[in-house]
Amino acid sequence: MILEHIQSPADVKKLSLGELKNLATEARKALFTKLYKHGGHCGPNFGFVEATIALHYVFTTPEDKIVYDVSHQSYIHKMLTGRAAAFLDEHKYDDVTGYTNPDESQHDFFNIGHTSTAVSLALGLATARDLQGQSGSVVAIIGDGSLSGGEAFEALSNAGEYAKNFIIVVNDNEMSIAENHGGLYEGLRLLRHTQGEGTHNFFRSLNLDYIYVEQGNDLATLIQTFQNVKDHPRPIVVHLHTDKGHGFDRAEQNKEEWHYTAPFNPETGEKAQLPFETYGEVTYQILSDIFKEDPKAVAITAGVPSLGGFTAERRKAAGRQFIDVGIAEEHGVALASGLAKGGAHPIFMTASTFMQRTYDQIAQDLCINRNPAVLLSLFAGYEGMNDITHLCFFDIAMMGSIPGLTVLEPTCKEEYEAMLRWAMAQEQQPVALRTAFVATSRPGTYDTTYATPRYSLDKQGQQVAIIALGSFYSLGQQTSDMLQAQGIDATLINPRFASAVDVEMLERLKADHQLVITLENGVLDGGFGERIARFYGDSTMKVRNYGLPKMLIDRYDRTAFAQENRLTPALITEDIVNILG
Amino acid sequence: MILEHIQSPADVKKLSLGELKNLATEARKALFTKLYKHGGHCGPNFGFVEATIALHYVFTTPEDKIVYDVSHQSYIHKMLTGRAAAFLDEHKYDDVTGYTNPDESQHDFFNIGHTSTAVSLALGLATARDLQGQSGSVVAIIGDGSLSGGEAFEALSNAGEYAKNFIIVVNDNEMSIAENHGGLYEGLRLLRHTQGEGTHNFFRSLNLDYIYVEQGNDLATLIQTFQNVKDHPRPIVVHLHTDKGHGFDRAEQNKEEWHYTAPFNPETGEKAQLPFETYGEVTYQILSDIFKEDPKAVAITAGVPSLGGFTAERRKAAGRQFIDVGIAEEHGVALASGLAKGGAHPIFMTASTFMQRTYDQIAQDLCINRNPAVLLSLFAGYEGMNDITHLCFFDIAMMGSIPGLTVLEPTCKEEYEAMLRWAMAQEQQPVALRTAFVATSRPGTYDTTYATPRYSLDKQGQQVAIIALGSFYSLGQQTSDMLQAQGIDATLINPRFASAVDVEMLERLKADHQLVITLENGVLDGGFGERIARFYGDSTMKVRNYGLPKMLIDRYDRTAFAQENRLTPALITEDIVNILG
Repeated sequence: MILEHIQSPADVKKLSLGELKNLATEARKALFTKLYKHGGHCGPNFGFVEATIALHYVFTTPEDKIVYDVSHQSYIHKMLTGRAAAFLDEHKYDDVTGYTNPDESQHDFFNIGHTSTAVSLALGLATARDLQGQSGSVVAIIGDGSLSGGEAFEALSNAGEYAKNFIIVVNDNEMSIAENHGGLYEGLRLLRHTQGEGTHNFFRSLNLDYIYVEQGNDLATLIQTFQNVKDHPRPIVVHLHTDKGHGFDRAEQNKEEWHYTAPFNPETGEKAQLPFETYGEVTYQILSDIFKEDPKAVAITAGVPSLGGFTAERRKAAGRQFIDVGIAEEHGVALASGLAKGGAHPIFMTASTFMQRTYDQIAQDLCINRNPAVLLSLFAGYEGMNDITHLCFFDIAMMGSIPGLTVLEPTCKEEYEAMLRWAMAQEQQPVALRTAFVATSRPGTYDTTYATPRYSLDKQGQQVAIIALGSFYSLGQQTSDMLQAQGIDATLINPRFASAVDVEMLERLKADHQLVITLENGVLDGGFGERIARFYGDSTMKVRNYGLPKMLIDRYDRTAFAQENRLTPALITEDIVNILG
Repeated sequence: MILEHIQSPADVKKLSLGELKNLATEARKALFTKLYKHGGHCGPNFGFVEATIALHYVFTTPEDKIVYDVSHQSYIHKMLTGRAAAFLDEHKYDDVTGYTNPDESQHDFFNIGHTSTAVSLALGLATARDLQGQSGSVVAIIGDGSLSGGEAFEALSNAGEYAKNFIIVVNDNEMSIAENHGGLYEGLRLLRHTQGEGTHNFFRSLNLDYIYVEQGNDLATLIQTFQNVKDHPRPIVVHLHTDKGHGFDRAEQNKEEWHYTAPFNPETGEKAQLPFETYGEVTYQILSDIFKEDPKAVAITAGVPSLGGFTAERRKAAGRQFIDVGIAEEHGVALASGLAKGGAHPIFMTASTFMQRTYDQIAQDLCINRNPAVLLSLFAGYEGMNDITHLCFFDIAMMGSIPGLTVLEPTCKEEYEAMLRWAMAQEQQPVALRTAFVATSRPGTYDTTYATPRYSLDKQGQQVAIIALGSFYSLGQQTSDMLQAQGIDATLINPRFASAVDVEMLERLKADHQLVITLENGVLDGGFGERIARFYGDSTMKVRNYGLPKMLIDRYDRTAFAQENRLTPALITEDIVNILG
């Protein structure tokens, strides 16, 4: 076996073409085994095996620098840079993250998880090289849908102005996570059809040099190509036509389903199913009803349709009521604002971590214009994705300070339906909803209007009031129960509004409470709880805020994380008893 | 005079070509007079007189819809849509804002002040039209540097996929605020040189139809052109070559200086000078010294070089140590991260309002990677720009919840120099600085390191402590003086860190203080003060936060605004005396 003896890229350079091909086969086998046992990004890695081997055969990292966009296609890169064991030994699978990571290896330059950033970051490396009179090639790898993101375009245009030796590998596998969207991809299709010879070449229009490689999964061709461009004095795009999922039949045939995979049965391809209902699925169920009732309702995704439950079949059924703008979050929000202004009822939905792309569009394009579009921040909270690049608990802090935006968080799917229906029916104002990963059920009667910030007083007690927002409501409830058992009759409040304070209710609490507890599934700094602390600042009411810490954390253990942040009924009860004295 | 009789676009349609030309002359005269007396955006409007008249001659708003990018070139549009008096009668100059505004007129569709948004917003209108089976043309006008922004690209690519009748007017005046930057503009130059016939047409590469118009300031040509494209069934780009500043010689000759103008002498062109030093100028002075000492120091702007004091001459002198990425804020921050990773010492600077473009790049590209780039948020606070689209007081709330980012705000230019020098010398972490519009002086000795969050205790008192951040420090000082006169010896603290709490100092205050006052020149919700309120939440310390309100406000009177928010020494003193009882 070759792979297990690859200690560093230097070992790759010693191999013959035949051995390199064997290495590719071994890499795919390791990939397959790890993926079915462990899950991870599938199609992007299968399609980029040969290119990664060829890159390391031709370039010499870390003197030369390779920057992977999104970097979920860097598994082979990790195998070749001293981390093969993490793909060969089941016990070491979690020794590496799913993205490039400078803390793991000197061959990784950035921790990257969001798309469309590699050209900018690599151009920074190239510019620093030139400023310091250093040498070495810089290679940015982009593709898999990332090209439609505005940040990538800004960088490509800049590279066209002043980059020197700078190589941009466009990994064109004809796909994003789902199918590609945007006129850009029609342009790329024409380039593929003409073997790169077509007029109106997007890259050349930005003053970039360009070559096309049809055989993007052929090792010899790739090696020759990279050798040819290695010392090219200008910025050059190497447009590789690759096959997403190459060498794994299921992933070749159903590219969207196998972009990412949970652990699966290697014989049947059957994937592990989530043992719970998600808010994504609930969203689809509610929206598909709304679509029937309201032909002006439109759902918008930015390249991640499945997060909101929109499978390929469902997208087709939704027809014009579903728009995938491709990976283009900024445009997604501005488009929603324009749709709302034009009389439609749009909802833009993405994961909380990707909503971060749209801060200015929310503030400027949407809220200043008071257009009634709905934003849905999915996966919000600490229970979902826990990679440092995909944390989903900054959205309250991000959206909560934007004027003109009502941010709601439901405690359960029944309340969510009430909120979503109200939000979709607005004509005068934008509304943001944030939902957790797991949908819970709490049948009951929920308000059908959220026009003014009124919290819901669910249980009247005294001494201590627990204001438990959204997905932390059950934590509040359990704490209340635990306090009851200790003879403390707590008040329990569902605030519903993450962005506003119910002044009247908070005032009333002053009469017979001495402590207010806030619980939020989001970062404390700039979050919901601090508004409450400010409100009571100059009174005698005591306030303790519970939530998540502002820190750089990667792949935390969720249970330990909750414990460390005292987010359990027992620990909160303990604190309350202590404060009350 | 024709202009004063234009009540609505219907009146424009009645005019002969000769009368339309006279109207253009009158519009320019009105523009000139208002600009020298009042100031405003100059070059963009002078260059777009004929195009605006032609648009209203051919299209019928509000059934047809015209969306102006940035919208600082909409002055002529306002003249033709019932608002001529605001350009003819000096007493009515301030009856209109400097941007399109739906509250002013049904002919305005969005309040737009940031760039690169018009294509998205207009595409939303067109998509809503199609969804509802309505008719009418939709026209997006973009140019003047905005095309390099990622949001514009995302929208152009989407339009290329699914737009139907949709017209994109590219106002190519060969300029941004300063000169254009990006390979894109080399592509546009080639198109101009070939009268639109060149290969590798950027717009066509995105599957957009395209025509080129060399005579972008010729009325007859423009009318004919717009009539030709009015019912075009596909998305089409009308590439107009216009002359920025056309008809005003100074603005034609010095396009950058006359992009925007303060009131000026109509004879000599001499502009009113600011009666104070700005932090932009101070920044240039400090950086030009640092550049000499550190050849790895690089300043980056996103199309607004003058905000940081970098005039054309100074940019030239800075050579490779100054990079203008064009209007491309996202790329600006990611490039800075890459430069820092590559060993350079970059600083990315823009106005606070434009920093909003970069939330995700700060969080992901920069902070997760802990790269030592510096961010400078200029104009921060309520004293500078007061248009709703350009408010500059959300940056503490925006940046303060991002992990890994140290946010500093100096109280004066001397402290700023210490902070900026420290920030530029970092090797392990990113640092953000926020500076106000007006630079003040407070000579003294300032710390040369800001490695750990330590507040500066400037005056030890008791009972009440005033924590006065950055540009509100003098407000704190004056309040302290006023309290002293009333026999209250307040503690005065310069916190320096907008993003962190000095736990030790806050703990110490508990011993002999019963009230803490925070002052910040930023929005209260999610801001600095709320961190302090949270810290003291479960203690007996009372806290009162002063800052700016979270609300949609436009062109507020600065003095009244301060008064309403109780941001005067007298009002704060009154409050303190009341709370202390």
